[in-house]
Amino acid sequence: MLILLTNDDGIMAPGIVAMYRELAALGDVQVVAPETVQSATGHGITITAPLLTSKVTIENAFTGTAVDGRPADCVKLAINQLLPRMPDLVVSGMNSGANVGINVIYSGTVAAAIEAAFLGLPSIAVSLHLRSDITTDYKRAASFAMKAIRQVLSNGLRAGEMANINIPALAPDEQPAGIKIVRQCTRPFIDTYEKRTDPRGREYFWNSSVFSLGDTEDDTDVAALRDKYICVTPLQFDLTHREMTGKWRETKWELR
Amino acid sequence: MLILLTNDDGIMAPGIVAMYRELAALGDVQVVAPETVQSATGHGITITAPLLTSKVTIENAFTGTAVDGRPADCVKLAINQLLPRMPDLVVSGMNSGANVGINVIYSGTVAAAIEAAFLGLPSIAVSLHLRSDITTDYKRAASFAMKAIRQVLSNGLRAGEMANINIPALAPDEQPAGIKIVRQCTRPFIDTYEKRTDPRGREYFWNSSVFSLGDTEDDTDVAALRDKYICVTPLQFDLTHREMTGKWRETKWELR
Repeated sequence: MLILLTNDDGIMAPGIVAMYRELAALGDVQVVAPETVQSATGHGITITAPLLTSKVTIENAFTGTAVDGRPADCVKLAINQLLPRMPDLVVSGMNSGANVGINVIYSGTVAAAIEAAFLGLPSIAVSLHLRSDITTDYKRAASFAMKAIRQVLSNGLRAGEMANINIPALAPDEQPAGIKIVRQCTRPFIDTYEKRTDPRGREYFWNSSVFSLGDTEDDTDVAALRDKYICVTPLQFDLTHREMTGKWRETKWELR
Repeated sequence: MLILLTNDDGIMAPGIVAMYRELAALGDVQVVAPETVQSATGHGITITAPLLTSKVTIENAFTGTAVDGRPADCVKLAINQLLPRMPDLVVSGMNSGANVGINVIYSGTVAAAIEAAFLGLPSIAVSLHLRSDITTDYKRAASFAMKAIRQVLSNGLRAGEMANINIPALAPDEQPAGIKIVRQCTRPFIDTYEKRTDPRGREYFWNSSVFSLGDTEDDTDVAALRDKYICVTPLQFDLTHREMTGKWRETKWELR
């Protein structure tokens, strides 16, 4: 099994190293990941600038290719140029920080997996919820992620299908509540900004929001992660609003 | 009617100026747009850096706020800090270049409109297909966009609903074939890269793909734009794959 592993926190991030060590049990894992942190870059790609690459060796883990681009660039470039053949699976992560609710649409981790799915490959995004009062244990989190990944694969993940997996923040003596299949929470999250003035009198604004796993419907990713479940959400990339499309087609649209 | 106008080509781009002049007929149009070109930045946002702002005046058009961030930042910041009240409509565009098919997921123009919809506002993205053999007439294209916008609004665009409008490339003597309600084409587009070596021997890759409105199903945005229709696609932001979610819930998921 040939697995492409990428992320959005950069090739040297602890989350990707922990995922590599776990995924190596499944087959040949090739790492192509951004050179630098690409958090919240969404589904950006690089068209007008060159993509520089370099070999990076992480001791006791892998030698991979660092790309000075976005997560989605890494997937495109790996598939087109760097891998010996099309991979059997693409994994993106493990991200430092949850990708649930509205954050799914900002996430570079999810974007890399969606890119792979759009290109016709089975793909999985993995993210870890962080809590400031708990020391992050990437190794343990990656081993929980593998339990979910193995079950996703045994359920059958076909070409173009994608699973978004989030691991809860757990204290050393805590266990996950289980694995739960959930939908993406689509409640709006209203950001807050602090207005400030720079030394030259120019106004600037700083995002001061703290995303919290707040009150929401029980069947969502946000609620399940709050309740310490490992959450799995199958995602798709067809943004067409089918119901509205059907309704609007019933009207006569004229150039007038 | 209070309208927030933004884009991803930057506040000085000809497309946003042309849209402003047309939209002014509908109400009070406030412009909050990126300071610089943000093409293909997808749904990125700025969390860890400050967002600098400045007033920009475009002669014979508007005085707006330039934000040194992403299109989605502009929507967030406008709603939270810059506008006197929640707008009645958010318009993003007119983008220089079509946003159909797979490009919908990379587009900063679409991301700004999706951000607005996620926050509970009605929103519209407008993009113009460019052809190198035709001189781009933004004024004429914006007037065609308005014909579609007026019909979208008269059909009723509710809170959280979004329309993705694309205007075909037309020679001066050509007319659009009509207005068509279409779905997003989800056929994969495989990019190509040229491999090169920099003066110091480092390998780099340059995206050499040319997106074309190729063969596809007749009811898609790609086909309609190719056939010179003004295309309208209602979009949504719930990425949950409902069918897979239902299927996976039938299986027992265990931590083992």
